[in-house]
Amino acid sequence: MRIAIVTFDGFNEIDSFVAFHLLNRAAAEGWRAEIVGPSAEVRSLNGVRVAVQQPLESANDADAVLFGSGRLTRQLVEDTALLSRLRLDPRRQLIGAQCSGALFLAKLGVLGGLPVCTDMKTRPFVEAAGVRVLDRSFFASGNVASAGGCLASPCLATWTIWRLLGRDAAAAALEYVAPVGERERFVAQTLDAVAPFVESAKVESAVVGG
Amino acid sequence: MRIAIVTFDGFNEIDSFVAFHLLNRAAAEGWRAEIVGPSAEVRSLNGVRVAVQQPLESANDADAVLFGSGRLTRQLVEDTALLSRLRLDPRRQLIGAQCSGALFLAKLGVLGGLPVCTDMKTRPFVEAAGVRVLDRSFFASGNVASAGGCLASPCLATWTIWRLLGRDAAAAALEYVAPVGERERFVAQTLDAVAPFVESAKVESAVVGG
Repeated sequence: MRIAIVTFDGFNEIDSFVAFHLLNRAAAEGWRAEIVGPSAEVRSLNGVRVAVQQPLESANDADAVLFGSGRLTRQLVEDTALLSRLRLDPRRQLIGAQCSGALFLAKLGVLGGLPVCTDMKTRPFVEAAGVRVLDRSFFASGNVASAGGCLASPCLATWTIWRLLGRDAAAAALEYVAPVGERERFVAQTLDAVAPFVESAKVESAVVGG
Repeated sequence: MRIAIVTFDGFNEIDSFVAFHLLNRAAAEGWRAEIVGPSAEVRSLNGVRVAVQQPLESANDADAVLFGSGRLTRQLVEDTALLSRLRLDPRRQLIGAQCSGALFLAKLGVLGGLPVCTDMKTRPFVEAAGVRVLDRSFFASGNVASAGGCLASPCLATWTIWRLLGRDAAAAALEYVAPVGERERFVAQTLDAVAPFVESAKVESAVVGG
C-alpha cells in the first residue's frame, strides 16, 4: 500500500514530515509513504530544499493521499493546470488534509458537503469556498479526513494507518514517537481522538456494501 | 541569533523538522534556525534527500546547537574526523539533543556529569557511555538540554526560545502549532514542562555571575 504526502513549494515542515515519519513507522508488506510533488524539488516554508520522491500524478493511484499545508496554498488551488494533474476519488482512496490543505479538498470537489478542520488563518478562506469549518483538531467522515493545527498531524497519520492496517498498527506506530514516560497516555489519547471516525466509516461502508 | 539544527544522514524527520519549524516561528531581529550538516545534502531515515543550509562548522558559533537523532548516530559518534569539526562550548552556547542525539552530548564532553533524556532504543548505548538516563521526556541543567521520544521535540524548541528570547516568544511560537481547540492546554502544558529548567538556569547563572 502506498500513501502520497502531497507537498508543494512553501510547505509547512511539521505538517508534511510528522505524517511522513509516523506513516513510515507502520510496517506491512509493500507499505510506504512518500513525499509527492509537482517538481523534482520543493522548497519549504522556512527555505529547506527537499527532493520529491514521486511525481504529483503518483497520488492518483495511491491508497491514501494527504495534503500538507503551506504558505502558497491559496495561490496553488487557483492553478487549474496544476489541479488537472490530480484525479483523486474518495470512493477508492482515503483523502486527508492538514490545515490549509483543506482548500485542496474543497477545490477538488471531494468534500461533498462535509465540514472540515483547518487552522485559524486558513479558516476564512475555506469558509469563503462554501465549506463549514469545525472548532476542533480532527474530523473524518467516510474516506475523507482533515486536521487543524500543525500538531494535530499525528491524528491524520493515525487515522490513515488505522483505516488501512488496523488499530494495532496505528498504536504501534504511535508508541515509537511518544514522549518518554508518556507513552500510554499519548497513544490512548491519539487513538481516542480518531476512534469515532474509524467506527463510523465501518458502519457507512457496511451500509454502502450491504 | 542563530540556531543550528545538526542533521546527518539517516536523520529522524520529526526530530529535526519539528524543532526547525517551531524555532522559525519565533520572530526577532536576525533570528534564524537552520539545518546544518556535514555535506551539501543529507538523506533522512525514510529516504528523503534534503539540502543542508549551512556547513557543520557553522554550529561552532551558533547561539544554540540542537542535535537531532537518527539511525546512524552510533556510528557517527565514533567518527573522530567528523567530531573534530565541532567545537562547542556550553559556557557560551545552549546545547540540546533529541533522542539518540544524546550520544553526541556524551561524546563531545559537554555533559560534565549531567543525566540526559533519550529514547528507549538509544538508552543502553548512552548508559554504556557512562551517562545516567532519566525516565522522562525533557531535562535541562544550565545550558544543556535533552529530550526523549520524537514528540518531545516541542519541549526542546520551547526551552531554546524561552532561554534566548523569553517566555512570551516561546508561548507565541507554540500557539502557531497547537492543535485547534487545544491551544491553551497545549501551550500551558509545554511551558510547564520546560519552566523548572529555565528558572533553575537563571539561579545558576546568577550564582556564577555573582
